[in-house]
Amino acid sequence: MTPGTGSWVVGVDSGGSGLRVALAEVVAGGPGPAETVVSRTPVRTGEAGIDARHLLEQLLPMVRGLQDRGAGDGRPVTAVAVGAAGMATLGGQLRAVLPGALEEALGIRGLALATDAVTAYAGALGQRPGAVVAAGTGMVAVGTDLTEWRRADGWGHLLGDCGGGAWLGRAGLTAALRAHDGRRGGSTALLAAAQTVFGPPAGLPGKLYPRTDRPAVLASFAPEVARCAAEGDPVATGIVAEAARRIADAAEAVCPRETDGPPDIALTGGLLRIGDPLLVPLLAELTDRLPQARVVPPAGDPLSGALSIAASLATGSLRLPGDPAMLHLVTPGTPRHD
Amino acid sequence: MTPGTGSWVVGVDSGGSGLRVALAEVVAGGPGPAETVVSRTPVRTGEAGIDARHLLEQLLPMVRGLQDRGAGDGRPVTAVAVGAAGMATLGGQLRAVLPGALEEALGIRGLALATDAVTAYAGALGQRPGAVVAAGTGMVAVGTDLTEWRRADGWGHLLGDCGGGAWLGRAGLTAALRAHDGRRGGSTALLAAAQTVFGPPAGLPGKLYPRTDRPAVLASFAPEVARCAAEGDPVATGIVAEAARRIADAAEAVCPRETDGPPDIALTGGLLRIGDPLLVPLLAELTDRLPQARVVPPAGDPLSGALSIAASLATGSLRLPGDPAMLHLVTPGTPRHD
Repeated sequence: MTPGTGSWVVGVDSGGSGLRVALAEVVAGGPGPAETVVSRTPVRTGEAGIDARHLLEQLLPMVRGLQDRGAGDGRPVTAVAVGAAGMATLGGQLRAVLPGALEEALGIRGLALATDAVTAYAGALGQRPGAVVAAGTGMVAVGTDLTEWRRADGWGHLLGDCGGGAWLGRAGLTAALRAHDGRRGGSTALLAAAQTVFGPPAGLPGKLYPRTDRPAVLASFAPEVARCAAEGDPVATGIVAEAARRIADAAEAVCPRETDGPPDIALTGGLLRIGDPLLVPLLAELTDRLPQARVVPPAGDPLSGALSIAASLATGSLRLPGDPAMLHLVTPGTPRHD
Repeated sequence: MTPGTGSWVVGVDSGGSGLRVALAEVVAGGPGPAETVVSRTPVRTGEAGIDARHLLEQLLPMVRGLQDRGAGDGRPVTAVAVGAAGMATLGGQLRAVLPGALEEALGIRGLALATDAVTAYAGALGQRPGAVVAAGTGMVAVGTDLTEWRRADGWGHLLGDCGGGAWLGRAGLTAALRAHDGRRGGSTALLAAAQTVFGPPAGLPGKLYPRTDRPAVLASFAPEVARCAAEGDPVATGIVAEAARRIADAAEAVCPRETDGPPDIALTGGLLRIGDPLLVPLLAELTDRLPQARVVPPAGDPLSGALSIAASLATGSLRLPGDPAMLHLVTPGTPRHD
């Protein structure tokens, strides 16, 4: 039996909408069916980054609750993988505190701290080489040839996230206001949609700028842009086509060229729910630029990706490459950097 | 002698960098040489908009200081014009409080409350029909045929201000990060410039998103985009050319078509200091789209525009049209709306 099989592992997905934790037994080298629990309280982010104590205060009772529900069979958890939005830049405290705290509380022998794009990758493609696009309010692409990670975009709504939900909604609102002002390039269809969603244009700045969740407000208009495109509005169609090109730019930048067999590309994230107006031009761009790749449906979500990383750690079979910012690995024998 | 000549008027320019106040005698229908005083304390903006009490607390002592310096000759101030950024949407309290407060404190008979783009217009073109572009961190164009005002853009950095400083800097940083990621459309020249200004790209989000003056941070990179364009970088050249088209879009939307004689267009604001890389394509666009118009140098700044509006009010010679949002006029006989 592969070492680690029969042990239990924990996957964690931490983001703006809360914390999701899953516990599963390792069977045949991968995670078996998982028990999952959800907290709607997002882990706090302070000046020192993601708050490790706040994460632990939620995580440990959630794990014990799962164990008390009968999962885990009394046997210890051997590995944990945490995927978190902002891990690369805001994960310093997690990297300092979690290895010791989780070893003490759970007796784990392996820990992975991953950026959410990496858990999305592992959920979508497992340990195969390829590229994963995560397009929601933001947009980031990550890819690997199993030697190193590449990342493209994910710079946030003012510096990039090109083609993501906030980008798309913002482009649509800008085109609506062009029509309102009588400037070139405006769309009366988008203006009508903006008035329906946000009321009179003069009030729009007041509904956006005072908010702290401006990217989400912008992204809330993305489905309207897609609808106007589906109804034939040429400006909206042009915006969605540009979003498809910008997303393809990122996928192209990270997709490995030389792999055994064709690399896989998976598209993930809530923006894809806007459907064909985006998917049709995006698939056309990807086929055109990356003819060697196969676009495949994602196998699972970021939480299942975290579980799969934890299971691979437990069995010593992790093929995804470690990376100081994207996939920080703490395994027995790894020197600690506190 | 024209009524009002020989009386004194006050012009006010209130914005993000503070408050400027000028006092001048009305001579030959316009303001004579002005005495000016500056406060570096910007008038507060609260939930009820621009704080009228905070404005008055600064303005009245500044006016009395100017009068004490000998200006005004002991004769009363007959009219005041206040230009303020955000007057249209945030000026409710000023419109409610200032008419009574200034009549009581100074004995004025005429008051104008103008959005800063209108005082910029009056400063640049006086009372002639035409269009004025104000391009700094933001970008707005206003125009009038002396019957009504038209405004284009000025929607802020997330909804428009297309071609302004924040727009230009943001486009440059996005292109820099494209190069960093290996995406199409990147510029290594802009990447090198961004690294010089902001340090390693990985730290750039942390230097922008926590700030409350994000538009100013973005705009601080605009001169680098212009420099790269001047040095022949094709991506930077394309960005600046697009900025010129976007600014021309706004000028075109507001410039009156039918006037006695050619309408005048004036370009104002700090962005123009980046010089030829922007001005050459912008003048070409304006000539192409508005062949009937003349591009003229601005005669004065927004503070001189406020003085000129006040002097016209004092002499009953205001030709610029009143507008509830853009140029709110309170003269003897105007019903008060408190």
